[in-house]
Amino acid sequence: MPLKNNHSIMCRLWIKGENGAFLGEGRVALLEAIKKHGSISGASRSMSMSYRKAWELVDSMNKEFGTPLVLAVSGGKNGGGAQVTPSGDKIIKNFLNFRNKCMDVLNREIENYDFT
Amino acid sequence: MPLKNNHSIMCRLWIKGENGAFLGEGRVALLEAIKKHGSISGASRSMSMSYRKAWELVDSMNKEFGTPLVLAVSGGKNGGGAQVTPSGDKIIKNFLNFRNKCMDVLNREIENYDFT
Repeated sequence: MPLKNNHSIMCRLWIKGENGAFLGEGRVALLEAIKKHGSISGASRSMSMSYRKAWELVDSMNKEFGTPLVLAVSGGKNGGGAQVTPSGDKIIKNFLNFRNKCMDVLNREIENYDFT
Repeated sequence: MPLKNNHSIMCRLWIKGENGAFLGEGRVALLEAIKKHGSISGASRSMSMSYRKAWELVDSMNKEFGTPLVLAVSGGKNGGGAQVTPSGDKIIKNFLNFRNKCMDVLNREIENYDFT
């Protein structure tokens, strides 16, 4: 018997390298929040995350991809902040596409699966 | 470009119903620990989990499946404990098979995926 109608499969995906996780749903949400808020501090506040934690997550991505996904910007009317780079944008998009594709596959798999 | 050789896709899967998650990797590990230790208290200790938390996880599974996956046993040389039922055994097996199948699929998907 496949899952009942009111049951659904949930999934958390991430990618790990030699130094642990460097891309996943939390980091992608952080990149999106940096885009929205224009700074790491604003993004971290919006996610109830410490600035230090957010900075470490950004740093882990910048290092692993070998190209910055987030850049500090100085000056301007808000006295500086952070911007997601075109590489960062592409990684957000690619990760979310990959995630959607995986969810489609998992939903297909589970339809034919007996859990009882 | 697909993932680098030293990168791997990781995944946590669970199944949720109207009352939230009721089957996932943590619950399946708990069922396996109950089999190994012969009691909910022994299993919870081995997973550094409170007895109350373990009991709640077992209860959520028993309720959602409508058939007990774990039964209390009384008496015997160890003064009682808990046993995983044949239904519980089947669910452990089916979940782990499903998880392996999903990991195979995700690893295949990611091979053809550009993350950069």
